[in-house]
Amino acid sequence: MLAPALLERSDIMLSTKEILVNAKNAKNSALVTSKEDRKRAVLAMADAILENKEQILEQNRMDLENAKGKISEVMLDRLRLTPDRIKAMAESMRTVAELSDPVGKTISEYKREDGLLIKKVCVPIGVVAIIYESRPNVTADAAALCVKSGNVSVLRGGKEAFNSAKAIVDAMKSGLEKEGFDKNLVNLVEDTTRDSANELMRANGYVDLLIPRGGKGLIDACVQNATVPCIQTGTGICHIYVDKFADLEKAVKILDNAKTSRPSVCNAAEVCLVHRDVANEFLPMVYKALAEEKNVELRLCEKSAQIIKGKTAGENDFDTEFLDYILAVKIVDSTEEAIEHISLHSTGHSETIISENTEAQKLFTSLVDSAAVYVNASTRFTDGGEFGLGCEMGISTQKMHARGPMGIEEMTAYKYVIEGNGHIR
Amino acid sequence: MLAPALLERSDIMLSTKEILVNAKNAKNSALVTSKEDRKRAVLAMADAILENKEQILEQNRMDLENAKGKISEVMLDRLRLTPDRIKAMAESMRTVAELSDPVGKTISEYKREDGLLIKKVCVPIGVVAIIYESRPNVTADAAALCVKSGNVSVLRGGKEAFNSAKAIVDAMKSGLEKEGFDKNLVNLVEDTTRDSANELMRANGYVDLLIPRGGKGLIDACVQNATVPCIQTGTGICHIYVDKFADLEKAVKILDNAKTSRPSVCNAAEVCLVHRDVANEFLPMVYKALAEEKNVELRLCEKSAQIIKGKTAGENDFDTEFLDYILAVKIVDSTEEAIEHISLHSTGHSETIISENTEAQKLFTSLVDSAAVYVNASTRFTDGGEFGLGCEMGISTQKMHARGPMGIEEMTAYKYVIEGNGHIR
Repeated sequence: MLAPALLERSDIMLSTKEILVNAKNAKNSALVTSKEDRKRAVLAMADAILENKEQILEQNRMDLENAKGKISEVMLDRLRLTPDRIKAMAESMRTVAELSDPVGKTISEYKREDGLLIKKVCVPIGVVAIIYESRPNVTADAAALCVKSGNVSVLRGGKEAFNSAKAIVDAMKSGLEKEGFDKNLVNLVEDTTRDSANELMRANGYVDLLIPRGGKGLIDACVQNATVPCIQTGTGICHIYVDKFADLEKAVKILDNAKTSRPSVCNAAEVCLVHRDVANEFLPMVYKALAEEKNVELRLCEKSAQIIKGKTAGENDFDTEFLDYILAVKIVDSTEEAIEHISLHSTGHSETIISENTEAQKLFTSLVDSAAVYVNASTRFTDGGEFGLGCEMGISTQKMHARGPMGIEEMTAYKYVIEGNGHIR
Repeated sequence: MLAPALLERSDIMLSTKEILVNAKNAKNSALVTSKEDRKRAVLAMADAILENKEQILEQNRMDLENAKGKISEVMLDRLRLTPDRIKAMAESMRTVAELSDPVGKTISEYKREDGLLIKKVCVPIGVVAIIYESRPNVTADAAALCVKSGNVSVLRGGKEAFNSAKAIVDAMKSGLEKEGFDKNLVNLVEDTTRDSANELMRANGYVDLLIPRGGKGLIDACVQNATVPCIQTGTGICHIYVDKFADLEKAVKILDNAKTSRPSVCNAAEVCLVHRDVANEFLPMVYKALAEEKNVELRLCEKSAQIIKGKTAGENDFDTEFLDYILAVKIVDSTEEAIEHISLHSTGHSETIISENTEAQKLFTSLVDSAAVYVNASTRFTDGGEFGLGCEMGISTQKMHARGPMGIEEMTAYKYVIEGNGHIR
């Protein structure tokens, strides 16, 4: 209804503009769904994923064939689907279907003395574009979360996974149609060149929110070029600060977990700051637990290099998201210096203080300006599932709208609905 | 503590960069204030405005002298300060001081089975830059609202009001200092050329939020050029839709109020959409009440021009914020067509349906995607004071973070503070 209808042309490629028009036109059909509708729609999408398993696996084999030799083994594994992984994908969508749905809820209400009733109501954002990489399950998760929250999704995945993503989206569309929903609630961008990403960044009037999920290059490109509202996600230079009042046994376990339990993810620690008063005792513990036992490469500031062996930290080592078995180490003179270092070098994702001193804890949690600030716990907990949100669309490292793991509530906005009876001012 | 300290040079002009450094350095002193501190700080600023009344009036006379002949009488009046207006300015700041302060509040809390406590805590945004025009009271209001919510403000007003704004800011700084607060909680940009506005738009790492308050040109420049998070405010092409089930007496009163009670403000109506079934009866009422009695110029679609006298609407008349005694009028065939027209032409500010039919009301409030959607009331209520927020920083017309009137809550963000005892994942 809102823009010229397009002909059905499932056999030929749609331009990004055509897809955006389809998405905008689907907004109203999303807005008139009930909570029950949205749950039913997501369940139908999950069923359809299972029903079209063979087709999805076949397209995935084609992607794997094309990618062989072009991407690393780790990336190939991320791209690979199996019957079990498809089952897990459908299960994850069913979990989303069962989440509590905030859309339509009256957040607050104010009745004026003159009888005018002002309600603040939770509403979907509208058209949400997501630029992501090659894991096929992101396609299913993002689509499910958007449909559940009344949003229309425009998915733009990596080119290595295009055939898999297309098969998954086609399946989800068929599930939606079968249950009588608009199949354009879910849309896949067919152009996987940089052009389409740029087009999404500047699609004012079509895209209500852009969520880039990917490396620093993509996020920076969005910050510099996007004219649509955009949420920065994911880049994590996370710090563990070991205070002079730290329980050092606790500290080394937390540091080990934060660094080595899964080094490739954004909530892994990249930097350890150590108070000078405990450095002589703590750094040898770090050396043993991380360098010796886990083969972590240490990049040391001048002072810490006088205590343990390791590479000397270079200019960029305190500003790099290694995503690898590498840890930068620096000795600081005070909690204040640790906070200052974090303020200058952090990406605003997650930081931890290890300390048994409540004053130091309080100073740290008050002044560190990151999405998640921990006391005596691993940064690895920054995750929608771990935080009890049931799922996540990404981890926001900015302050506007959403911060930290973005669950279903963060995929909504609000509007004011005001009921009068001839009220004038 | 976070950047090199600057020398005191109150006699010479500071560069915008120097001011941004000062503001960033003041963030931590804002973060350690208590609710009582923030209230006391705003009250001290209000007192200082009154104490420095003569100085402020003198600087304002200089601005008026310089502006004479260069700006309209209306603009000159907006710029003019009087003892009464200064008193009102201080009163308004005192109202802000007394508002309920959300900073530090735990918004929600989740304790995991393993004992990890995840708290979502309300925090200030940080450094808030505001680009505005020539009304001196905006300087005082914006500074007060920022200090009250724990934010540091960087104010960049219009050049016509620079001397007045400087005197007001100097007074507020002296009030802050007297009570032992950091005077750089409030900052005024001294360069009033376009350069400083551009610098603020791209001050990543310094400005946490940019709020442009002004005309379409300024807002568009921010959307196109800003790389810092930015909230679009104020532009209002507001619609009144008169449904076939409207009480026409009510409708004409609401339309008259929305158009003529204060045509120069953003919540004034610019467009009236009329259902064809009531056009023959309603349009003559509009002609009488608005054109004849209030001298409103009507710009009519083809069909409405067959019913009443008026200019023919040109191509842009349904996309213009007139801010004047001008109303565009269009006949539509259905509520759906009215909604579609609004979707294509509205700026997302405020829209009204006049109807006694609950189905039509519901369709309109569900599908119209604006900050404030009214049933049987004037759009003129979209205002922080009228909505019970006590004050406002502007009216957001976007969907991320804040929508509609932005009060003190909308000047905050949240972060997660997580308390563990050696928790690892």
